[in-house]
Amino acid sequence: MNPVELIRKKRNGGNLTRKELEAFITGYVNGDLPEYQMSAFLMAVYFKGMSVEETATFTEVMLRSGEVVDLSSIPGLKVDKHSTGGVGDKVSLILAPMVAACGVSVPMISGRGLGHTGGTLDKLESIPGFRTDLSIQEYKQIVADVGLVLIGQTGEIAPADKKMYALRDVTATVESIPLIAGSIMSKKLAEGIDALVLDVKTGNGAFMQQYDDSVALADALISIGNNMGKKTVGFITDMNQPLGLMIGNWLEVVESVECLRGKNVPDLMEVTLVLGGAMLYLGGKADSIEEGMKLCSSAIWSGKAYEKFLEIVKWQGGDTSFLEQPEKYPASKHTAEVRSGTAGHVTGFETTRIGLLSVELGAGRRVVGEVIDPKAGIVLAKKLGDRVEKNELLAIIYTDKGEAVDRAVRELLSCIHIGDSVPPRRSCIHAYVDAGGARPWAAPRIY
Amino acid sequence: MNPVELIRKKRNGGNLTRKELEAFITGYVNGDLPEYQMSAFLMAVYFKGMSVEETATFTEVMLRSGEVVDLSSIPGLKVDKHSTGGVGDKVSLILAPMVAACGVSVPMISGRGLGHTGGTLDKLESIPGFRTDLSIQEYKQIVADVGLVLIGQTGEIAPADKKMYALRDVTATVESIPLIAGSIMSKKLAEGIDALVLDVKTGNGAFMQQYDDSVALADALISIGNNMGKKTVGFITDMNQPLGLMIGNWLEVVESVECLRGKNVPDLMEVTLVLGGAMLYLGGKADSIEEGMKLCSSAIWSGKAYEKFLEIVKWQGGDTSFLEQPEKYPASKHTAEVRSGTAGHVTGFETTRIGLLSVELGAGRRVVGEVIDPKAGIVLAKKLGDRVEKNELLAIIYTDKGEAVDRAVRELLSCIHIGDSVPPRRSCIHAYVDAGGARPWAAPRIY
Repeated sequence: MNPVELIRKKRNGGNLTRKELEAFITGYVNGDLPEYQMSAFLMAVYFKGMSVEETATFTEVMLRSGEVVDLSSIPGLKVDKHSTGGVGDKVSLILAPMVAACGVSVPMISGRGLGHTGGTLDKLESIPGFRTDLSIQEYKQIVADVGLVLIGQTGEIAPADKKMYALRDVTATVESIPLIAGSIMSKKLAEGIDALVLDVKTGNGAFMQQYDDSVALADALISIGNNMGKKTVGFITDMNQPLGLMIGNWLEVVESVECLRGKNVPDLMEVTLVLGGAMLYLGGKADSIEEGMKLCSSAIWSGKAYEKFLEIVKWQGGDTSFLEQPEKYPASKHTAEVRSGTAGHVTGFETTRIGLLSVELGAGRRVVGEVIDPKAGIVLAKKLGDRVEKNELLAIIYTDKGEAVDRAVRELLSCIHIGDSVPPRRSCIHAYVDAGGARPWAAPRIY
Repeated sequence: MNPVELIRKKRNGGNLTRKELEAFITGYVNGDLPEYQMSAFLMAVYFKGMSVEETATFTEVMLRSGEVVDLSSIPGLKVDKHSTGGVGDKVSLILAPMVAACGVSVPMISGRGLGHTGGTLDKLESIPGFRTDLSIQEYKQIVADVGLVLIGQTGEIAPADKKMYALRDVTATVESIPLIAGSIMSKKLAEGIDALVLDVKTGNGAFMQQYDDSVALADALISIGNNMGKKTVGFITDMNQPLGLMIGNWLEVVESVECLRGKNVPDLMEVTLVLGGAMLYLGGKADSIEEGMKLCSSAIWSGKAYEKFLEIVKWQGGDTSFLEQPEKYPASKHTAEVRSGTAGHVTGFETTRIGLLSVELGAGRRVVGEVIDPKAGIVLAKKLGDRVEKNELLAIIYTDKGEAVDRAVRELLSCIHIGDSVPPRRSCIHAYVDAGGARPWAAPRIY
């Protein structure tokens, strides 16, 4: 195999064969194929795509590059959720303990921040002591004992994807349906799950900004999942504003704990409950998604979901005292208020720019391996449709980078549009998707 | 500057600003920006191109990454030629001494063989003792004393291009007009020239096989040159067959010496004289390209061009006795004749394949740093349109690789098409190009 010829083949719009994909990806994992050839290939895939068969083969080659965990010795169905990523998306932190508290095991392997979006791992690791680098053996043991586990991709799980994911993040090759689908599904299918619920974001803070692209991605993921024998359904959910109010790793842990303790952050909890309902339904603990949502809601109100969260944090080495007393956590060196220059209603957020701004403030990585500041981020005071008076608080910025503050305030202000019109309130759940395609979803009101 | 955002900007079809290009390229040269980000960027440029202004700025940033030689202390205009590369293209070896003999200084920095094409440096180095790795100081001194110099790209000249060129070769990002234009012009503009004549090849042995692509490349090169204050014109010349009869490093030196001593190899001398005429015109030694061509022709017939060649070879350490008595040169271990299986006329050459075959025989490198066999190559006995009888000689193969001979004979035979039709004889010069665009060129008959 001549790697340059395979890059050229993809660049010219050809489909790589199984043998070619195996040679290219195995060479990359071994270190025989250099990063710069893989990044050129990834950019060519960005422009030229992959056929359905090629995407399936690509996923399988990545899955087989590592271990596929066997959780069959643990009773009951194991169900996971995957989100395509957004700004302020801390759903997993609430969802996993909530679903586990309802009796469905959640073996969750999460990722790090990618592009303008945060990552569950980075959020969890902002809890002092929290370990995400467990071995497969520990992973299996904790699922069996606690009913959930929250780890990072280990070296054993889809190492090809692990290496490629980090590279895509720093080469602007994230937003490609076959690459996203292959990356997601190779990890998820390695977890030992029986079923999977997808949260495919759409809107100006999602990787797929257009609704049709989001549906196309959901279709690709569902087709791979079902073909591999795992029941897979999904929701297209809104990402035209950050989810919830807080953006940044520790800030998102704080907001998650608030929600686990019963606070209603409407958009965040709407998404969390519908995904939880679907997980309980696929996990055989509810006869419908709606019934599953009610069970999830009860797990919040009863305190069982929060107890489960404290339990898993302790099991994974985290210091729960910071969850109970968030004021103990170190403070950012700098905070700055963003206030509205005009009165009106919030008519729009430039969500991707807000995500990128939070990266600049220290909440994400601009290059592989950069150290994150867990405290850094943004807390919004207003959401879409909210009334705003002149000089009223829109958001607060948290950072240790004093030199970044002034620019950040101006930047954030320009990302929050205030206008005269009042945008209609609408559900965050744009559609339900399964093997039969996408269709409208009307979420029952729980809170 | 966030490099990922710059890659994304280009990927989305945006134009990078001067500041952005400077940051990106300077970072790459310093080693701060990793190869994998540059290769992703290069692939994005492959798909999205660069605007005219962006290409000019890109070139200038690469030019300024190194030293720009100042030849202003040498009297008269300094003019160079650049060819986009082909098979059997030994024009520089005849052209540079011919033009210098007419009183226009030719400071020429050349490259090595690339892909299926040969490189002037490799040809020159086949002359025993010939040194191409001169310092900038020696370079300037020799131009002043002899009126020409023939060296390779030193570390001081456009280091950004040097690094990027090697990366493009292994990431399938060579075939991009702005990248090619930037690479060529950043090197040429660093030479200290006042004007430049381009030989942009077109046809099945050129990098740009389509005429329109060749014109687009010529336009890009001419626009950069003129914008930088260097008068630049060019010709679109034919590369649907090897130029001249000989292919391979020493073989091409031999053919060049023959032509310098007055032999007429029609296509080779047609291209050489028109380029030389344009160089004398731009160099202020002739009132028109046609007059320049006549002066060049006289320099050949008078022997002055050949004397100048012997002079520069001596100055650069070469042993001229091999030029005077080529039979002294070591012989290839194996020679093999290629004979026609049928009678007819030569209707076509598969020129790129012939170039690749000569690489296989030892005349070029398959991987970076491979040692070249200067003796290896091919001598054609027939050219496009020539009458061929059954079993008549078409070509002779020279190589030290005994195991390659049989396959090479079959391969070369399959690259020379013999048919019943007689293709019309036509000029090798398809068009003349300057700032006003491409237009037909009718070369006056000199020989």
